[in-house]
Amino acid sequence: MSGWTAPTRDTLFVLNDVLNITDCDLPGYESLDEETVQAVVEGMGKFCADVLAPLNPVADAQGCTRHDDGSVTTPDGFRDAYDQLVESGWNTLASPEEYGGQGMGHVLGTVLEEYMNSACAGFMMYPGIVGGATSTIISAGSDELKSTYVEKIVSGEWLATMALTEGHAGTDLGLMRTKAQPQDDGSYSISGEKIFISGGEHDLTENIIHLVLARVPDAPVGSRGISLFLVPKILPDGTRNSLSCASIEHKMGLNGSATCVMNFDGAKGWLLGEENGGLAAMFIMMNAARLAVGVQGLAHAEHSYQRAANYALERKQGRGMGKRANPDDAADSLLVHPDVRRMLMDGRAFAEGFRALVLWTALQIDRAHGAATQEERKETDALVSFLTPVIKAYGSDRGFETAVEMQQVLGGHGYVKEWGMEQIVRDARIAMIYEGANGVQAMDLAGRKLAKDGGKVAMRFAAMVEDDLGAAPEWLAGPMHAALKDTTAAAQWMLENAAQDPDNLGAASYAFMQMIGVVAVGWMWVRMVQAVDGREDEFATAKRITARHYAQRTLPQTSALRARVEAGAENLMALPEDAFARA
Amino acid sequence: MSGWTAPTRDTLFVLNDVLNITDCDLPGYESLDEETVQAVVEGMGKFCADVLAPLNPVADAQGCTRHDDGSVTTPDGFRDAYDQLVESGWNTLASPEEYGGQGMGHVLGTVLEEYMNSACAGFMMYPGIVGGATSTIISAGSDELKSTYVEKIVSGEWLATMALTEGHAGTDLGLMRTKAQPQDDGSYSISGEKIFISGGEHDLTENIIHLVLARVPDAPVGSRGISLFLVPKILPDGTRNSLSCASIEHKMGLNGSATCVMNFDGAKGWLLGEENGGLAAMFIMMNAARLAVGVQGLAHAEHSYQRAANYALERKQGRGMGKRANPDDAADSLLVHPDVRRMLMDGRAFAEGFRALVLWTALQIDRAHGAATQEERKETDALVSFLTPVIKAYGSDRGFETAVEMQQVLGGHGYVKEWGMEQIVRDARIAMIYEGANGVQAMDLAGRKLAKDGGKVAMRFAAMVEDDLGAAPEWLAGPMHAALKDTTAAAQWMLENAAQDPDNLGAASYAFMQMIGVVAVGWMWVRMVQAVDGREDEFATAKRITARHYAQRTLPQTSALRARVEAGAENLMALPEDAFARA
Repeated sequence: MSGWTAPTRDTLFVLNDVLNITDCDLPGYESLDEETVQAVVEGMGKFCADVLAPLNPVADAQGCTRHDDGSVTTPDGFRDAYDQLVESGWNTLASPEEYGGQGMGHVLGTVLEEYMNSACAGFMMYPGIVGGATSTIISAGSDELKSTYVEKIVSGEWLATMALTEGHAGTDLGLMRTKAQPQDDGSYSISGEKIFISGGEHDLTENIIHLVLARVPDAPVGSRGISLFLVPKILPDGTRNSLSCASIEHKMGLNGSATCVMNFDGAKGWLLGEENGGLAAMFIMMNAARLAVGVQGLAHAEHSYQRAANYALERKQGRGMGKRANPDDAADSLLVHPDVRRMLMDGRAFAEGFRALVLWTALQIDRAHGAATQEERKETDALVSFLTPVIKAYGSDRGFETAVEMQQVLGGHGYVKEWGMEQIVRDARIAMIYEGANGVQAMDLAGRKLAKDGGKVAMRFAAMVEDDLGAAPEWLAGPMHAALKDTTAAAQWMLENAAQDPDNLGAASYAFMQMIGVVAVGWMWVRMVQAVDGREDEFATAKRITARHYAQRTLPQTSALRARVEAGAENLMALPEDAFARA
Repeated sequence: MSGWTAPTRDTLFVLNDVLNITDCDLPGYESLDEETVQAVVEGMGKFCADVLAPLNPVADAQGCTRHDDGSVTTPDGFRDAYDQLVESGWNTLASPEEYGGQGMGHVLGTVLEEYMNSACAGFMMYPGIVGGATSTIISAGSDELKSTYVEKIVSGEWLATMALTEGHAGTDLGLMRTKAQPQDDGSYSISGEKIFISGGEHDLTENIIHLVLARVPDAPVGSRGISLFLVPKILPDGTRNSLSCASIEHKMGLNGSATCVMNFDGAKGWLLGEENGGLAAMFIMMNAARLAVGVQGLAHAEHSYQRAANYALERKQGRGMGKRANPDDAADSLLVHPDVRRMLMDGRAFAEGFRALVLWTALQIDRAHGAATQEERKETDALVSFLTPVIKAYGSDRGFETAVEMQQVLGGHGYVKEWGMEQIVRDARIAMIYEGANGVQAMDLAGRKLAKDGGKVAMRFAAMVEDDLGAAPEWLAGPMHAALKDTTAAAQWMLENAAQDPDNLGAASYAFMQMIGVVAVGWMWVRMVQAVDGREDEFATAKRITARHYAQRTLPQTSALRARVEAGAENLMALPEDAFARA
């Protein structure tokens, strides 16, 4: 069965016809014409299909190995593929020119992220952190740190990690115990144990730059007392720093990625940003990582969709009961069965809609940095912040659910390793958990993004969607209006009921996050339908059919979600804690 | 972290207070008093917790091994546990007394099924087929077959399989190629290859009795030309039959179960039922298997709920934002977070509600066989048939989804093997696929169970639910009425629109199956709330809180599901087949 192909036609449609990136006057977009964009997208697709995709089953079957000396070997072929990636330069596409990058902006970088994650998600975990890590060092590091580290990370000569989590405290960074003792030379001595460190140790690059959260002496308790440090595996003088990989986790999936327990044993590190200002510095990296996780959801959805669609096309089995069967063959393709189509259309509608959403958001990130006016930059940044937890959580939820639904299309073959579907499900599952579990994202949306500014950004988002509905056909505008009405009512309910009981926000948060996700993807369908307006070719027709599927079958979910929002916290909090355990 | 405990208190509540099985005048229930029921339930729970639960991680890590001679070794401890099961006699509880069983009816047998599947799902796959296989042989076999095989299968001395699927045709039995050539002695010579045969070969019993679908010469094409045969591994004269395990599958999970490719190479077999009547004979077994798969969904939900609840109780992390936080500790338990409670309450509401539903259905199966009047037997049988695909599909869907949601409660630990949660997710996934993929169940419901009798059984089901709502409190009766209204409207739409385009049934089938599932579980919550009416103890209060959670957050889903039903087939079937592939 055919595997993954880069969906270049759909990508180019979004870039050219929906986002019009070649007409965009932001920095990094001036030099882009349709020919360049096409060459870049197709080149990246070819690299991922030829070099990375063949590694995917190997990565799963073989995983990573930690040796007694603490070194870690990645799966066969990873080192060679990484060298090819660095040589190709695709990894430097979106990095700043000042540090040796190509400065092409986030949109094309996001396309590469999708393709790499579809082709081999375990491999992508190593370079996946680079953008966030370099942004953090650039914005929070001293000139010396910048000149020593950024260029080598941008080029791919070195890789980086985020070392945040500790065993006794996952999300709760305030409970952190890792210590940072100031040294006379201005550096710090870092000691503690971090867990779940992706790429904490590996054999792809000589040096690995860890960005580590720790507490300085007498730091305030809680999350206002944590600081961020740059802690290299190899020090500038070429000696080995006092840090090591103690073990690697045995996980459900994503076996190509070495998930390490890291020991810092008086390791030398340098402060990034201010003492006790680690949370702010960390969020530069974390926001990038959250968007990247949403892109992983897209990648898993697209990859699994393609395999399921190919299977359904090739598999002749059973007989349609409807007028569309083909009585001359012994059996019809699976596509005569409406319920098989339901699953495929669900996958397709999510993947295409969410692709548009993440690429649109990538463009807004560049606008937040490069727009002409301060006001536009600020407003765009607020909008990106509002959507970031939604893209992370809704994207990874739906990415996983799509992989599960696509696995279902293959029947028993979906459950057997050799067909490759069950790996996608296992690989996709972690995206709902890491970089802040999806419930934490929902709470971020409800608390920091909705309630904190009294709903202003949320209402601006709703107004932007509303503005686009005027030009939409009624079969799409009608369900979108209804979904938007449910969503604004839900937001209103949350704002009104948060004061009386703050747990009302938490109780409503997940359903609200899903509503924004449903509406945001629907909005992108509105824009895509607009982009093919007047066209009657096959591609345009398929877009309208897929949009209608979304309108008919996904948008109506908001009514049930609104009911969940309005259910409130009282009953949710009513069961005494002990009653949760079984007698 | 604590693992699984038999939920005996909840089981006994359903048996005694909801179903009143000790007052039941059906055959097999006469000798039951509350003391006996309690002793049986607790005894089974203890056996499963002590003997089976410790095998679960071993089963996953070790899996089964096929040796070069075609023999298969099950994981360490399986053989010993199986011997203990046979010695305990728990496996004979629900089997007919005529063949050495204890004749206690399906309800207690279903309790055992749940507990065994929770404790070690991979182990349960071996004895799991016994009830269906013996029913099939008893109802379709000759006296000689019955006297040779049934007692030994009932006692556990021998085990059985269902050998239906072939590689080129999963659900489509009409494409079957395995041949059965009549022999002079009245037996048949069976040749062909079957795949996905659970327990096709193993080391638990000396003999394995395969129930094999095949075609006799000149059989009509399609599913009306298949016949069912009993094909033992060891023939009555002690010689080895010509069949062997060619390989075992490498699966996503359920590694304790040997999933075999079986070669029948002129194997001797005997007809069960009539030539070309295999489908009817098979469905005796298949219906039992489908209900059993629903019970697996329950088992995975309960097991994963318990682990997540225990984790949430023990894990101190983060700080509640609401008035329920405990400021004297460094951190609160996870249960101060409304969104963590949302997940746990979802799991609890499904597990408890679905437990009541499967036990209620098990009682109806006994009523369908043993009720006083022919009319009651017939009506009950039709109701069980109507609910069978729902229990299989909705139960396995929600069982898997619950396992995924409970995995989420553990954060990163949920993704790591040592915590045991990810195994439940992997083990639970297959239930949505085997014994007829859930889409096939939905089509069975829509076509054979709803449309074929013009909606009569469906309306009788709705009337039974409606009857019970009069005594329900408004907070439950209100949402139930709304859900029931959506569901009957959906059924009406399907009946009205099936003739114009039969694909309208298929297009609506999945959402309709989900609606019946949502309503049926809600109905059980109505009955459970009724059963604790007037009680103010902790258990009764917890039931009402959990019921209210279901009413607030699950019942409102029917509006979105109704919209999917009424969306119809047209747009779903509109995309040309080729357009499903990516360019």
